[in-house]
Amino acid sequence: MSRVLITGGGGFIGQKLAYALAIAGSFRGQAISELVLADVVLPGPIETGISVARIIADMSDPAEVARIWGDGFDVIYHLAAVVSGAAEADFDLGMQANLMGTLNLASAARAQGTCPVFVYASSVAVHGGEVPDPVPEGAELNPQTSYGSQKAMGELLIQDMSRKGFIDGRGLRLPTVTVRPGKANAAASSFMSSIFRDTLEGRRANCPVSGDYLVWHTAPRTIIRNLLHAAEVDGADFGYNRNINLPGRSDTINDMIAAMKLVAGDDPVGRITWERDPAVEAIALGWRGAVRHDKALGLGFVADESFENSIRWFLEDDINQG
Amino acid sequence: MSRVLITGGGGFIGQKLAYALAIAGSFRGQAISELVLADVVLPGPIETGISVARIIADMSDPAEVARIWGDGFDVIYHLAAVVSGAAEADFDLGMQANLMGTLNLASAARAQGTCPVFVYASSVAVHGGEVPDPVPEGAELNPQTSYGSQKAMGELLIQDMSRKGFIDGRGLRLPTVTVRPGKANAAASSFMSSIFRDTLEGRRANCPVSGDYLVWHTAPRTIIRNLLHAAEVDGADFGYNRNINLPGRSDTINDMIAAMKLVAGDDPVGRITWERDPAVEAIALGWRGAVRHDKALGLGFVADESFENSIRWFLEDDINQG
Repeated sequence: MSRVLITGGGGFIGQKLAYALAIAGSFRGQAISELVLADVVLPGPIETGISVARIIADMSDPAEVARIWGDGFDVIYHLAAVVSGAAEADFDLGMQANLMGTLNLASAARAQGTCPVFVYASSVAVHGGEVPDPVPEGAELNPQTSYGSQKAMGELLIQDMSRKGFIDGRGLRLPTVTVRPGKANAAASSFMSSIFRDTLEGRRANCPVSGDYLVWHTAPRTIIRNLLHAAEVDGADFGYNRNINLPGRSDTINDMIAAMKLVAGDDPVGRITWERDPAVEAIALGWRGAVRHDKALGLGFVADESFENSIRWFLEDDINQG
Repeated sequence: MSRVLITGGGGFIGQKLAYALAIAGSFRGQAISELVLADVVLPGPIETGISVARIIADMSDPAEVARIWGDGFDVIYHLAAVVSGAAEADFDLGMQANLMGTLNLASAARAQGTCPVFVYASSVAVHGGEVPDPVPEGAELNPQTSYGSQKAMGELLIQDMSRKGFIDGRGLRLPTVTVRPGKANAAASSFMSSIFRDTLEGRRANCPVSGDYLVWHTAPRTIIRNLLHAAEVDGADFGYNRNINLPGRSDTINDMIAAMKLVAGDDPVGRITWERDPAVEAIALGWRGAVRHDKALGLGFVADESFENSIRWFLEDDINQG
């Protein structure tokens, strides 16, 4: 029997991961006895036969972590984070949630004495500054955002606590996940979903950058598959570094739009407007559009084969027909 | 007028730095009005005309940092650390002193609102694991010790707080500093000084590794010169990354011994014994003997020209004639 915790369990990836685990019913050869979804707002329900606890908790407070810990967990997915815009606007908030939250969780996992599997959602935002383009394997992390810096500090913590045998950590640098369901948000990357999602759902959406802007991306289905795989890999196979660049695809906005046209015809493309937004562009141009991920492929993580698939999967899984 | 804080001000490098600052009397074009030496044990006195405060304080406690802060500082040298062996033996102690201590100090510096110069002593121990040999510029930090991991987390903090304009940080990855005065200690690197210092002072000393072991090193005089320079460089010249590999020299133990023979004759060499110590060797072989430091040279930091000089300077500055 296996207990699984998902922080950020109310988020779009957390909910999809919970659903995938509930459908599978077992994990690492063990039946899942309980799935705990924790988030700062109450996570949505997961329709399933297995026991799902939904809890409001803030991981940046050690007392709240202790409260949800109970008998401990066999697998911890740490997806919760204060995202890039918020961490940039409030340095202390980001440090508290992203660095101290990770430390609080990893410390609780360590205190179990069972070296549980700890899957840590890092981000491609750890790459920036002096790093070459495309980002090679083994490049120094030189993030140019507080979010990326805090994620990179968390990576070092996960690696060292794994080396010490406290936790069995796996850090994954997530590409931009698109096409995301739901609504546009304040993230600078929001347009990378909205120009597809919104136009496929019949609304107009603006692309604030040039059509030749290169996006480093992965589909929701692929990220869930890779998150599940992350817990199944033998920790020793990671070698000296538990943190990896997850596979992603490099496509220009123009290529992604062409893929949407191939799958869904001319209408959605016609709903895209092209008003450049210098503020968004300034942030987006600080990101990287191509990242080597040979180590992840060697560990059995999968890459997206096309953005056409991402469009098809959005139509099958997530489109709001309302 | 300029106020300067040195944490680890009771240590061998802290004391030499304080002495050099006191002799200079001014810094960054400003007369030094006060030099504050803080350490967990009372720092030794510095004979000088300028005001030197010596304080016992533990930087891992924010209240103690607040207590010493007074009117704030123009330049902060953060040299204090729990060293490699101790941080490896007690993970929480290392995290508290090395990561939280750095965060406490940088936060106090930020709270001044004046963006003071903050020189952070990182270490070549941030390099390890998957990093190529010799260590190239821009290599991912993949430390294989808790000390190295905590120093690397501190580097990311210094970089991000500098990018935000909170502090004017400069992180320096120090090579092994040899020949150190004083007594052998429990550090695995202790022999890299003792086989020279102790034999020059007439005692026997053991070399626990093979003579072809490659040491990445710098002399005390050079490190002081580079620490002074670190505060003088224009912060903008660091570009996207405030953390650099300091210049060092790659020499085998055999080459270093030959240099000592050239300067001090046959007698000291005859006092070296060669009993291999597998425990020390296991740690030492995890370190790196060669590190690229082109960026530091471009910023005006200096490299050692020979180990003969290091021997000469030890005889001039530090030998215990007693």
